[in-house]
Amino acid sequence: METGTAQRNESMIEGRNAVREAFRAEKTIERLFVQEGLKDGSVMDLIRRAKKADALVDYVQKERLDQMSETGRHQGVIAQIAAYEYAEVEDILKKAADKGEAPFIFLLDEISDPHNLGAIIRTANLCGAHGVIIPKRRAVGLTATVAKASAGALNYTPVARVNNMARTIEDLKKQGIWFVCADMDGEVMYDLNLTGPMGVVIGAEGSGVGRLVKEKCDFVASIPMKGDIDSLNASVAAGVLAYEIVRQRMKK
Amino acid sequence: METGTAQRNESMIEGRNAVREAFRAEKTIERLFVQEGLKDGSVMDLIRRAKKADALVDYVQKERLDQMSETGRHQGVIAQIAAYEYAEVEDILKKAADKGEAPFIFLLDEISDPHNLGAIIRTANLCGAHGVIIPKRRAVGLTATVAKASAGALNYTPVARVNNMARTIEDLKKQGIWFVCADMDGEVMYDLNLTGPMGVVIGAEGSGVGRLVKEKCDFVASIPMKGDIDSLNASVAAGVLAYEIVRQRMKK
Repeated sequence: METGTAQRNESMIEGRNAVREAFRAEKTIERLFVQEGLKDGSVMDLIRRAKKADALVDYVQKERLDQMSETGRHQGVIAQIAAYEYAEVEDILKKAADKGEAPFIFLLDEISDPHNLGAIIRTANLCGAHGVIIPKRRAVGLTATVAKASAGALNYTPVARVNNMARTIEDLKKQGIWFVCADMDGEVMYDLNLTGPMGVVIGAEGSGVGRLVKEKCDFVASIPMKGDIDSLNASVAAGVLAYEIVRQRMKK
Repeated sequence: METGTAQRNESMIEGRNAVREAFRAEKTIERLFVQEGLKDGSVMDLIRRAKKADALVDYVQKERLDQMSETGRHQGVIAQIAAYEYAEVEDILKKAADKGEAPFIFLLDEISDPHNLGAIIRTANLCGAHGVIIPKRRAVGLTATVAKASAGALNYTPVARVNNMARTIEDLKKQGIWFVCADMDGEVMYDLNLTGPMGVVIGAEGSGVGRLVKEKCDFVASIPMKGDIDSLNASVAAGVLAYEIVRQRMKK
């Protein structure tokens, strides 16, 4: 897989000392892969640091680590660091306020394909959105492949990570932001009024927007489907819905 | 590269007998890779067959073939076969006529990324387009990776290959079809009337629509760009423009 390669080359750190140094230097570690069964003091220390830094810890078989390893000397631990730093949700709201614009935010519910995540961040930048919010779990992070697919947008568009997407939507609703998700059983997007402060929720490839998140949305927008297959690519769907919002805002 | 893997596993044929058999069975061979300097009768016969079948012939160094080869016994020739059969432009027009709809066609000017090509075919299917036209040269063909990225759309949406995109546009204009390409210096797409029989031209990643092709277009449509970077991902741009056409046709 392309991701695997990119991660190996550009954002994987192997071996106990190297990983400990990465934690000390406060690099953003997305994930710590630990060999199953290892419980010695040095490994336990790294796991503690990972949990403190809010990184995911994955216990995997030695064979998996061997496969991921470039040096062949992983000593039972490999850390995946973020290619870019994450922003906070507040940074996104501040960006809108600084520009004197109604907030326009993308929320991605479990996008797992790094090309899609990168393309969506690229779209967010170009359609004038103020930032992107992704969940911490069950989603791809800001890997080197994502950065490449974003075509530079990651340098401009803040991406925040949250623990609970439904709760984040609730919090933002209190601040006057409306939410629209794309789903086939919704109202045709052209018939909705999407001109206010808006969060656009895009669901996972395949399964779509999760039930809990969908229930929090003010609008469920459907993109007209006239074909034989099920659904658009997630990054295309995000672009089509986001540009309907752009159109409505321009015509307002 | 992901493509390379897919091609190696699923759509590469190695060795002189195997390639000759593929030609005999009339498989659609996209490209014949031949080791530089080889000129014996058996190789010359394969090159003749390739030219007759309109396949591209690429002369490459032995090292490149060794790298592409899975069996290690390529004997100086590797053929890349299409994962799907191509349609003719007439098939696309017939599809529109059969449905009693004004033709709606995608024309892709040198899309080289298989994920983008697949995602665009997927979009073409879902927005109700009748087919996709791609150029024979300087573009990716219907590889296994494209088929996968199309999420099944290749089973429904005909894809035709043409030698000269500008000439194809000219021919189709005589049949009453209008052409719109996406380009930054165009008129904002929301202000154009795109409700007629329409061909949507999408340019290459990076360089955009070529000059010759652009000159043939009736409309140059710009997608509003409000960000810091240059351009949308090609498949996202195709989706955004195509759905503006869908919107206009629905509102008509």
